[in-house]
Amino acid sequence: MKIGMLGTGTVGKRLAGRLVELGNEVLMGSRTADNPEAVQWAKQAGKGASHGTFEEAARFGEVLFLCVKGDAALSVINLAKPESFKGKTVIDVTNPLDFSQGMPPSLFISNTNSLGEEIQKALPGAHIVKTLNIVSNEVMIDPGITGGEPTMFLCGNDAGAKEKAAAILKKLGWKDIMDLGDISNARGTEMVLPIWVRTWTTLQNGNFAFKVLRKK
Amino acid sequence: MKIGMLGTGTVGKRLAGRLVELGNEVLMGSRTADNPEAVQWAKQAGKGASHGTFEEAARFGEVLFLCVKGDAALSVINLAKPESFKGKTVIDVTNPLDFSQGMPPSLFISNTNSLGEEIQKALPGAHIVKTLNIVSNEVMIDPGITGGEPTMFLCGNDAGAKEKAAAILKKLGWKDIMDLGDISNARGTEMVLPIWVRTWTTLQNGNFAFKVLRKK
Repeated sequence: MKIGMLGTGTVGKRLAGRLVELGNEVLMGSRTADNPEAVQWAKQAGKGASHGTFEEAARFGEVLFLCVKGDAALSVINLAKPESFKGKTVIDVTNPLDFSQGMPPSLFISNTNSLGEEIQKALPGAHIVKTLNIVSNEVMIDPGITGGEPTMFLCGNDAGAKEKAAAILKKLGWKDIMDLGDISNARGTEMVLPIWVRTWTTLQNGNFAFKVLRKK
Repeated sequence: MKIGMLGTGTVGKRLAGRLVELGNEVLMGSRTADNPEAVQWAKQAGKGASHGTFEEAARFGEVLFLCVKGDAALSVINLAKPESFKGKTVIDVTNPLDFSQGMPPSLFISNTNSLGEEIQKALPGAHIVKTLNIVSNEVMIDPGITGGEPTMFLCGNDAGAKEKAAAILKKLGWKDIMDLGDISNARGTEMVLPIWVRTWTTLQNGNFAFKVLRKK
């Protein structure tokens, strides 16, 4: 599958690398076509990996991953041009984290709105699926490192896009996937971040994830 | 142990009943000394169970449970009189749920503040421990009904009060207890509610809880 990765940070590189290993073609997009992080990543990842602008990544992929800092998400979408996303599944991994007051971060949008909803509004022709935002990048591509089978939530307005996202999650190793409904449920999953950050602080590492324990 | 239970709703009755079964003396407090819910509960719960006003409950207990609706918490504290709480451990089970816009509820305080912190400010002489607010009343007294060993977070400013709370949690069946630090961490645990509500909606029952899966 052709995948466009928007973002060259740790999350983007980790996901993109694993997606190439799984046999996908991944174009990593950035503000410039020759971002050193993206160039180096493409060289290391090898066959199937390439790099370019945000717009090139958005046009390239059948499925797109949005892995930029939350406060950059809407400007990155504008750089990539909203029409580049038309009809595509956009897996939104962003979080509206506000570090301006130090640690732990608060959320710059929450409670009665979410970043996932704002991204869907900015891209009315695309199908946003919010998922993977509640775990560290290490856990995203290897949920078993938590010592169990954690739960991954997803939500979005389009059933077909959620099926595509769930199929990718399964290839990444996720076995317990819970569909919460439409994109407004991103309010719930983004508001997991405050407890995620505090659990990280308590455990002093990110190799954990939440499991919804329930009788089957 | 003498326990004051503030609140006569489902949560208060469920917790109070179990605490009596475990051998504690529990006085259930309400706005009036003869609230029919509290009278009936005390009759059914039998030896060790009694009822009275909020103030009587607060004066009676060595440990107090605050199990009222979030938007009533501060007025109940005033009815019980802040001096009644002096030096006591107050287990705060409340959530700042706002149902005014329908389901799912939002939070009337969140992100950069929490109801737990507001309660601590209203009771500077008491030791607030926020816990148990992230599960249904059925799970509070029987975490094993989730089919595993879920995680219970607690936070508060006083180490001794947290030890008392943790000892009670253990008697209720909680084995995986995580101390997040001071009461400001109630921001994290109260913001679990939006995902809790959505998980409830997805599963259509409250017999679930979150487990922090991690390597030991």
